[in-house]
Amino acid sequence: MTPFSTERWHRAEEWVGHGVAMVDTPALVIDLDAMDRNLARMADFAQTHGLRLRPHAKMYKSTELALLQMAHGAVGVCVQKTDEALALARGGVSDIYISNEVIAPAKLQRLAEAIRTCRTRFAIAVDSAQGIDALAHALADTGVDQPAAMDVFIEIDVGHGRCGLPPGDAAVALAQRLASHPVLRFAGLQAYHGSAQHQRDPDQRTRSVQEATQAVTLTRQALAAQGFEVALVTGSGTGTFLNEAGSGIWGELQCGSYLFMDADYAANSVTPGAPVFEHALFVKSQVISRSAAHAVCDAGHKSHAIDSGLPTVAFPDGLSFANGGDEHGVLRSTGSLGDLPALGETVWLVPGHCDPTVNLHDYMVGVRGGLAAGVVERVIRVDARGCTG
Amino acid sequence: MTPFSTERWHRAEEWVGHGVAMVDTPALVIDLDAMDRNLARMADFAQTHGLRLRPHAKMYKSTELALLQMAHGAVGVCVQKTDEALALARGGVSDIYISNEVIAPAKLQRLAEAIRTCRTRFAIAVDSAQGIDALAHALADTGVDQPAAMDVFIEIDVGHGRCGLPPGDAAVALAQRLASHPVLRFAGLQAYHGSAQHQRDPDQRTRSVQEATQAVTLTRQALAAQGFEVALVTGSGTGTFLNEAGSGIWGELQCGSYLFMDADYAANSVTPGAPVFEHALFVKSQVISRSAAHAVCDAGHKSHAIDSGLPTVAFPDGLSFANGGDEHGVLRSTGSLGDLPALGETVWLVPGHCDPTVNLHDYMVGVRGGLAAGVVERVIRVDARGCTG
Repeated sequence: MTPFSTERWHRAEEWVGHGVAMVDTPALVIDLDAMDRNLARMADFAQTHGLRLRPHAKMYKSTELALLQMAHGAVGVCVQKTDEALALARGGVSDIYISNEVIAPAKLQRLAEAIRTCRTRFAIAVDSAQGIDALAHALADTGVDQPAAMDVFIEIDVGHGRCGLPPGDAAVALAQRLASHPVLRFAGLQAYHGSAQHQRDPDQRTRSVQEATQAVTLTRQALAAQGFEVALVTGSGTGTFLNEAGSGIWGELQCGSYLFMDADYAANSVTPGAPVFEHALFVKSQVISRSAAHAVCDAGHKSHAIDSGLPTVAFPDGLSFANGGDEHGVLRSTGSLGDLPALGETVWLVPGHCDPTVNLHDYMVGVRGGLAAGVVERVIRVDARGCTG
Repeated sequence: MTPFSTERWHRAEEWVGHGVAMVDTPALVIDLDAMDRNLARMADFAQTHGLRLRPHAKMYKSTELALLQMAHGAVGVCVQKTDEALALARGGVSDIYISNEVIAPAKLQRLAEAIRTCRTRFAIAVDSAQGIDALAHALADTGVDQPAAMDVFIEIDVGHGRCGLPPGDAAVALAQRLASHPVLRFAGLQAYHGSAQHQRDPDQRTRSVQEATQAVTLTRQALAAQGFEVALVTGSGTGTFLNEAGSGIWGELQCGSYLFMDADYAANSVTPGAPVFEHALFVKSQVISRSAAHAVCDAGHKSHAIDSGLPTVAFPDGLSFANGGDEHGVLRSTGSLGDLPALGETVWLVPGHCDPTVNLHDYMVGVRGGLAAGVVERVIRVDARGCTG
């Protein structure tokens, strides 16, 4: 967008084909081998269980990775915002579901224009009559009038306490509203239990999804009583997907974080026998200052998001990370003081929370062959970075 | 950098000349009248006290605002990272001090190249012999050899516990090292007490700066005993500038946040009689979902940084903000339920921490005439966004 940001992009592209030591710091680095294993593991899981996989692209905000997931069997991707949807559609992603409510006429008009002009199939969530009407009006104003031009999911609050209707009867009025707008197709229910994802104890997560299952079932029954069939229940996340998969209720999984993982997910106790996902996202940093008792590295919370906790130090061993502010991290030895890295030495961090960490960066550096001695294979644009609108 | 980011930029530019209601959400909005008053208030303070003002551009990462501050008497700006320095130099900022240590040869080479080719005066901080030598070598390798081509400040840890030498004798060896490299000029001491800035009680802040003053004085004395004069002590911040100004020790103030302020600074108790800075930075958001007891707005922590606390709601009155995740905020009424905003209604938030909030955005929308009924005067590029390298 500016000459200097273009310069920084070209500088990163020059690392391709070179060893990971060339990568300047701080940088967001993907261990591509680990990522590919995560990719395959979730794709296999979904296929084995006969479930649609629609990973959440809000996590990595990158056209290239959305296309990669779809090449491995994902039916499409989810996003949270209209501008994320438009950015990915521009990049050629063919099936995008905004798993969130959009009210503003200007946003809906942009979405309607994209429906009119590009090949991408778009879907959206609603939880109000006003939202449904605004959507229908935007489509009409833009000249989109073919039946079922857009799939619409009614969102139910299944325990997260954020968006969505109360379970049960409330959905009926919205299903009726949707039926009054032939351009819209009632495609099913959006049922995502956000606060369950990081419940540490698998039994807690099981109970949360049981609660969510009851909410969905109540809603289905109320709709069925009025003649409305729920074709699909979509939701789930990296913390609870086993539960949704085992419920027989969810037909589509929206897990996103599994592709990269982070320190917050690593703190969950895993259900025995569950697929295990590896850390694939790291921040490469270096030491810029040393005292007798601590080392300061060049990665602070403008490089890795700390909303869900501080990063952990992946390499070298034996270091703890303390908050050093926006541009620094303070490393201390958890063992003997001889373990503190020297000036200029590299340290590798696992970010606390992958989604907002990616959103801090304009690009991610994909490394093949591991972090110790691997080669930069490609630089991946975070082309939906900052698209919160 | 991508066609879609250019499209978003142009969309924002189309708001210029229109009412603030046109601004899509979530957006980072500057109340330009409040900002101008803050700008003048600090410029007057520095001038009245005979102090140099070198505001910290890490806060707003914008060439346009750096130039504005310099047009109002600032001697230059500070940054924390080499790429911030290069971005601002590209934008025409003529005097930039990297108030931080840089060790990597590649970064120092880029800096040396900028010294060789552009008119900007650069300065830097050091706290190690290795850092000094690396800098001198980079300059030599790049063919920069004029005496005093770069000002160098020796950083002292004055109580923050991050970068910097211990106070006292340790600075002598570095001053001697600097003297051995004529291309470098020992310009003084970098003395910034970061953790003092948000100590709530002004007496606490006074004590912290007294501690810092002792550390600086001890260091000056040790240097003077070896024949090294400290020409300038540079540091301070929006929380403690009164103290540094009154000490007779600091000659240059690096305050950054005063220009915009945030919820974290608003929680400090102000010293009686001190200049008061107004909130000038806001996040415009809108309600996308309603329940009986809460409203969900479209600004989460991908729109406003929460490292130092959640945002507060500036307008409307009577609302609290609870964490709704990356893309949402949960608003509750602190009074009667009739006060919850309706679907589509605008809410204005004061971010918890201004610096990392700005870093989430590609541009800021400057509004003249207040948030209620003002007009978009300009859109300001955050051209050093993401420049952590």
